[in-house]
Amino acid sequence: MTAKIIDGKSVSQEIKNEAKFLTEKLKAEHGVTPGLAFILVGNNPASEVYVKNKTKACESLGFYSITERMPENVSEQEVLDNVDKFNLDERVHGILVQMPLPKHINEYKVIEQIDPGKDVDALHPFNIGLYTESKSWDEIVEKRLLLPCTPYGMMVLLEKYGIEVSGKRAVVVGRSNLGGKPTAGLLLSKNATVTMAHSKTEDLAAVCREADILVAVIGRPKFITKDYIKPGAAVLDVGINRTEAGLVGDVDFEAAKEIAGWITPVPGGVGAMTISMLMKNTYLAATRTTNEKTS
Amino acid sequence: MTAKIIDGKSVSQEIKNEAKFLTEKLKAEHGVTPGLAFILVGNNPASEVYVKNKTKACESLGFYSITERMPENVSEQEVLDNVDKFNLDERVHGILVQMPLPKHINEYKVIEQIDPGKDVDALHPFNIGLYTESKSWDEIVEKRLLLPCTPYGMMVLLEKYGIEVSGKRAVVVGRSNLGGKPTAGLLLSKNATVTMAHSKTEDLAAVCREADILVAVIGRPKFITKDYIKPGAAVLDVGINRTEAGLVGDVDFEAAKEIAGWITPVPGGVGAMTISMLMKNTYLAATRTTNEKTS
Repeated sequence: MTAKIIDGKSVSQEIKNEAKFLTEKLKAEHGVTPGLAFILVGNNPASEVYVKNKTKACESLGFYSITERMPENVSEQEVLDNVDKFNLDERVHGILVQMPLPKHINEYKVIEQIDPGKDVDALHPFNIGLYTESKSWDEIVEKRLLLPCTPYGMMVLLEKYGIEVSGKRAVVVGRSNLGGKPTAGLLLSKNATVTMAHSKTEDLAAVCREADILVAVIGRPKFITKDYIKPGAAVLDVGINRTEAGLVGDVDFEAAKEIAGWITPVPGGVGAMTISMLMKNTYLAATRTTNEKTS
Repeated sequence: MTAKIIDGKSVSQEIKNEAKFLTEKLKAEHGVTPGLAFILVGNNPASEVYVKNKTKACESLGFYSITERMPENVSEQEVLDNVDKFNLDERVHGILVQMPLPKHINEYKVIEQIDPGKDVDALHPFNIGLYTESKSWDEIVEKRLLLPCTPYGMMVLLEKYGIEVSGKRAVVVGRSNLGGKPTAGLLLSKNATVTMAHSKTEDLAAVCREADILVAVIGRPKFITKDYIKPGAAVLDVGINRTEAGLVGDVDFEAAKEIAGWITPVPGGVGAMTISMLMKNTYLAATRTTNEKTS
């Protein structure tokens, strides 16, 4: 048996096409152009690339975008002031502070300064609370809640590939605030029986083998081997590890695909969805403004 | 083998004694008396009893307390206005809106109106986000975060009885916002491998038998039988079901205690902790104000 490959790149393109279509409609019907503001501190080369790629995506979808660059030694207060500026800017529906920030700046404080309605990374505690307290995926969709982009993308992939979630056992390895924790919450909202595993889990391989849906958000190349996978399981690999052999996921793809039922490649799997979901969040944030204006 | 009985009543009294001692210190050193405001809408007899018991606890600890009673047909706006009044009242460090509210009032809206710093039920999405994003139990304690009272009480019981959490498998059955979900989050913060199970879980008994720590927050009398319990497990019963035979938990206590390692009775187990943890939260909220004033 060989697993079906989940093609994140192609689904990502679908989401972008859909967002582009909806954006044209939003412009025509409400005169609203979704706008995304980036705050980029320092000269981290990876951050530069991320912001560049996200800006390109904005352009291709017809979004307004603006980037505020600040030097590495900027004060925390100046960052907070820039967040406030965008909180008040009506052209801006989404604010993204590119992480990591220099060590002298408190990331929590900066995130909490963002207007939760413009928090398209869904990192603000208020937004974490909103999706956590939701009783179902339908409620999340109906309320147009902002969701962390990567877990959100994963949910879209499961849906597009018709992978059953309700009643199934899901195991999420890793518990970061952008990765594992929200993924567990979203899978629960779709009625999976969800296990959160991590570095302190005893006999991790056995726990992982319980999973019909196994999500790896660890940050260790090829950590998940064949022994961690139940035959036929859907394996979603969120890891993006730079190694001498190039980009490698948290899953040993070649071995895993012989036993899994579905699997995401790296690159071109879950990671490929992230920017599209950011665009989707920005579109959602823009429509929420519209509704408030017209109601 | 017979399980050790976890005596919630006696631990609850310890917490109250400690809170009383700390409150006297707070009054003497900072001139601050912890204050708790109740908003009670309508004539639900159970709600009347809850508020009465909480008020008594305030009195016995030397807290200031005040109850705003409103008729069943009060408007949502009037409830919101009363929340605002207490948000601004410096004598009040905790605000508790007794649930359920009449159907014409949006509970989410009322909860979100509460100043998160005074939300001693820890129901505000901002507070849910704060404890969810915390990386460890130590971080939660250090930041003096407000936690939902019942799960918080459960964590205290586990600690007082020296029940190992880190690396152990915990299964939480039920996913309410006051019960199952925060319990899972707090157990995770103490490094348990946590599974969230619920009504859609397939083969629930087998899932529960994986648990070193089994938490039942279901609301169905004696639902958890012997077949759901791994020998030696700690069984925490959050259910409080009124039956013809009196108050009954979600666990079949008589049968379960023959196989469990530790077990909470109903009444006198987890439920007995709730009011004490509310007092603790109110005390914490009061000290946070003090620190802000003196810093």
